[in-house]
Amino acid sequence: MKTCLDCISCFFRQALEASRMVSDDENVHKDVLQEVAKEFSDICLDEPPPSISRRVHKIVRDLTGNPDPYKEVKRKYNQMALGLYPQLRESVLASDDPLLVSIRMAIAGNIIDFGVGNSFDVEKEIEEAFHKEFATLDYSEFCDFLEKAKEVLYLGDNAGEVVFDRLLVEVIESMGKRVVYAVRGAPIINDATMDDAKECGIHENATELISTGSDAPATVLELCSPDFIDRFKSAKMIISKGQGNFEALSNEKGPIFFLFKVKCPVVAEDINHKVGDMVLSRG
Amino acid sequence: MKTCLDCISCFFRQALEASRMVSDDENVHKDVLQEVAKEFSDICLDEPPPSISRRVHKIVRDLTGNPDPYKEVKRKYNQMALGLYPQLRESVLASDDPLLVSIRMAIAGNIIDFGVGNSFDVEKEIEEAFHKEFATLDYSEFCDFLEKAKEVLYLGDNAGEVVFDRLLVEVIESMGKRVVYAVRGAPIINDATMDDAKECGIHENATELISTGSDAPATVLELCSPDFIDRFKSAKMIISKGQGNFEALSNEKGPIFFLFKVKCPVVAEDINHKVGDMVLSRG
Repeated sequence: MKTCLDCISCFFRQALEASRMVSDDENVHKDVLQEVAKEFSDICLDEPPPSISRRVHKIVRDLTGNPDPYKEVKRKYNQMALGLYPQLRESVLASDDPLLVSIRMAIAGNIIDFGVGNSFDVEKEIEEAFHKEFATLDYSEFCDFLEKAKEVLYLGDNAGEVVFDRLLVEVIESMGKRVVYAVRGAPIINDATMDDAKECGIHENATELISTGSDAPATVLELCSPDFIDRFKSAKMIISKGQGNFEALSNEKGPIFFLFKVKCPVVAEDINHKVGDMVLSRG
Repeated sequence: MKTCLDCISCFFRQALEASRMVSDDENVHKDVLQEVAKEFSDICLDEPPPSISRRVHKIVRDLTGNPDPYKEVKRKYNQMALGLYPQLRESVLASDDPLLVSIRMAIAGNIIDFGVGNSFDVEKEIEEAFHKEFATLDYSEFCDFLEKAKEVLYLGDNAGEVVFDRLLVEVIESMGKRVVYAVRGAPIINDATMDDAKECGIHENATELISTGSDAPATVLELCSPDFIDRFKSAKMIISKGQGNFEALSNEKGPIFFLFKVKCPVVAEDINHKVGDMVLSRG
């Protein structure tokens, strides 16, 4: 998916929010926005939004001098999600269709996204995700692929959200499949890194934890490590979690299932859905 | 009021909305945003938002080749408001306190502001303005000033909205006062120009119609004509209508009453109010 002109104002908002998280100095905030403006004064929008977002947040890190502006909020949401985990796991395992219910919960966790805004009501989101109708639900195709696959590559998304992914990973593993869970190669927004994934305990459920090798806030293949690209290309089934991974991979061929909540009007228009819609879609 | 860093993303949104109103060519939209980005890559934010907005919309006009991108929507809202006028006038004149009710209606009209967004429900706004409590209401001071003044300088705001101002102007004139109604000197966003004011029929109620002599989307004094500045400085009572005029004049000394609806979080924070609040405030 190409970046849209509407994304530009959103990048400025993100840069300002991130700068304010780590510095009280308005001159620093201003320097960041001026540098972001320089970036946009001559820009090619053929790249997907996460590629541009990557450059914007590099400016934030460089000019605030903070290598991980979202570190504290990531920890906060990792811990918050872990607090909810036992009860959610119980609900999933006690349900008629643990696979589908864990998919619903994975989508609930997708709300924890500081790229879109900085306030969200996770408990309300869980409540809604249990019952809401999917806008797209390619579930039987998902089940067919899953039946045949021995291994699933699961592209993670945000910190905190990883705990919700654990529910789905556990259900898939209980079907005798291996799940390889991929995280970002370095801190970017509140995306899950290896540290976050471990704090969320996903290594207790997934067979393997790997890194994309990139600091983009999504799986932008051109920016990933050769090792990761090999894993991606050879995967028989890929679960691509989150809107950012959709933006980055929507034009990729392959056995991909996109699993996310629509959180911005640009993506909504791209897939002819509404903001708030729940999606499990065969790529 | 100084421009806030939060305003920057809003300026990009405005520039894009305005460009799309008059051109379907995405390359033109992109050129506009790149030029706006150049503007912000080295900017001083000591000016009030309308001064910066003026430069942003000049870029839109220059690069789209359209001297008045909002011309059609201004006409649409002028006509829409004129359609509502007879009924509103009847309600005002039949009320217990026509002065206060016409102030309420003037605030209802303040919603017609394409600087803030491009969709609003005017009829809902009218309904609300009849009953809603003011967040600030310096009404007795307003009445005191009005009693003593022979002439009131009324700083207009947007097209369409002028029709709502007519109600207040008529009530003030019926008290034996002269009202001088000031409009922008050239098209900018959907702000009312002389043509708009006349289309709205304000000349049937106000004693005199004058221009600020400036193409800023508010009364930024440094940019106004010497004639207008004289009128402003010698005025014994000024009604400053709209958020933009508040942003431009909030630091001015003088017999100013600000009359507006709070429509953005930056202004809301500046005056410690909430978005949606109704304000009649002695400057």
